[in-house]
Amino acid sequence: MNVLVSGRLADRVAALLQAATTAPLQTRAVPNPTAADLHWADVFTGFAWPAGVQADIGWIHAMGLGVDGFACAPTPALFTRTVGSMPLQMGRYVTGALFSFQQRHDELRDAQTCAEWAPVEPRGWPSRALILGTGLAAQGVSKALSGLGIHVAGVNRKGHPVAGFDRTVSLAQLADELRVPPCLVVNLLPLTEATRDLVDGAVFAALRGALFVSVGRGATVHEYDLRQALQDGSVAEAWLDVHRQEPLPRDDWAWSHPGVRITPHIAALTTADDVVADFFAALKARGAGERPATAIALTDYTGER
Amino acid sequence: MNVLVSGRLADRVAALLQAATTAPLQTRAVPNPTAADLHWADVFTGFAWPAGVQADIGWIHAMGLGVDGFACAPTPALFTRTVGSMPLQMGRYVTGALFSFQQRHDELRDAQTCAEWAPVEPRGWPSRALILGTGLAAQGVSKALSGLGIHVAGVNRKGHPVAGFDRTVSLAQLADELRVPPCLVVNLLPLTEATRDLVDGAVFAALRGALFVSVGRGATVHEYDLRQALQDGSVAEAWLDVHRQEPLPRDDWAWSHPGVRITPHIAALTTADDVVADFFAALKARGAGERPATAIALTDYTGER
Repeated sequence: MNVLVSGRLADRVAALLQAATTAPLQTRAVPNPTAADLHWADVFTGFAWPAGVQADIGWIHAMGLGVDGFACAPTPALFTRTVGSMPLQMGRYVTGALFSFQQRHDELRDAQTCAEWAPVEPRGWPSRALILGTGLAAQGVSKALSGLGIHVAGVNRKGHPVAGFDRTVSLAQLADELRVPPCLVVNLLPLTEATRDLVDGAVFAALRGALFVSVGRGATVHEYDLRQALQDGSVAEAWLDVHRQEPLPRDDWAWSHPGVRITPHIAALTTADDVVADFFAALKARGAGERPATAIALTDYTGER
Repeated sequence: MNVLVSGRLADRVAALLQAATTAPLQTRAVPNPTAADLHWADVFTGFAWPAGVQADIGWIHAMGLGVDGFACAPTPALFTRTVGSMPLQMGRYVTGALFSFQQRHDELRDAQTCAEWAPVEPRGWPSRALILGTGLAAQGVSKALSGLGIHVAGVNRKGHPVAGFDRTVSLAQLADELRVPPCLVVNLLPLTEATRDLVDGAVFAALRGALFVSVGRGATVHEYDLRQALQDGSVAEAWLDVHRQEPLPRDDWAWSHPGVRITPHIAALTTADDVVADFFAALKARGAGERPATAIALTDYTGER
């Protein structure tokens, strides 16, 4: 089996694949794969499909949970993702943001910088959270928040129920759901044409000093509307791990906004070990004639094409 | 019943006591009570016994969980404490410190200040925590940490078991316990002559880059040894909410130490509502001939006198 490996983890993943004795694999680690490389390959793995390349492939194994980088890929017979510990990591990132906000860590640190003894009370504890998205990452966040006694509602396209959420509603029901404003909104929408700019003023206007944490894809957030919401206080603080352009340009307004915490797309990091473990698990399932647990229908995530 | 009310919450507590219709109470709110005030009173409530005053009293109701301010008080027939939501608050404070440390919030914020896109990996998740103290506040912290999947050991004088801890050891067994160094050490020791400077180099030297969170009483920590531990890395970061002198003097070394987060004794705040609710609960229990749930033997907390 020929495995074509791309992206920033390419060398490390290829080495791990070669080292494994469970399956005879040929690997090729290439920064910018060509049609010829893909023609050679049985499997392609990377964070995104090579730009401008047209070639069929039987199996794509994405290195991340987010798969919008494959919107222009051919539809393979099998599309699997790396899940690893990313749902757990996402839960920890959001929990960290919540505690920083609730415990007023930034205010306390600013006072420390001035050697100022300035007692503050923590903010009220959030009773309700809303997660936009109900996929694996969202499930990891829901689990973390539920464990803290927070009621968690989830939003997905059709409102289908998902284990671990107290309630799920459809995108069409979102406005209704927001009539009782949640204290915490977590954005984990995948990026499709349908979700671009979806988190906009209509969502923000319903909030009353909420914490907004964006960990899915930056382009699902209407940036101008977010800035307005921070201005008028409907969003009290925003943690933005994902951005329309990454790295976030140095002159972006968000870097210096007092209500914004910027992190550099680190909420859930793929490791080469995770990529390889999930690849071999999928390979094993396939060998047994089963559908791998990490398999998805790519078109469900990238919209109509 | 005559209730003498002292301390920063005096006016608010006195007003709430007067407003309650469940019991006929006379209140006197006094910043610095005299022996005459105490002679008038059936109950004294405050954060500390009035300095230099000698008078007998039947009932002391402490406004906080920590009772070292009553080391020079007479031993009353009944000594009750305010518990309120303080164990829960303590759990949240420590959890917040843990997430700030594990998620590297300070590094990320410093990078943001420079508009610097600098991905970092989170620290490893702590598998084991050690809490010095097993009282009500420590139980609140243990509950919070256990909920995050962390194994929690507690230390108390005799090593008696306490619900909610995975294990308890005695102070005499502490050195043994530290042979497998915990990733997180929470100091919630009460201040007595036996615990003064107890958390010293012997404790710190056993650690390997731990997070140290001090939320009990500042004088239980050997300050010079802590500074050394931060210097040599056995303590990677220290969150200090309590201090030998409060407010912490502006020229104290800890304000500007990069490994220290100073907070102004806010980990668990007493509210006037909590003081009054726990006072009335104790009053009701006493009326029914029962020992109030918040009653303690003062000498257990202040040492031999």
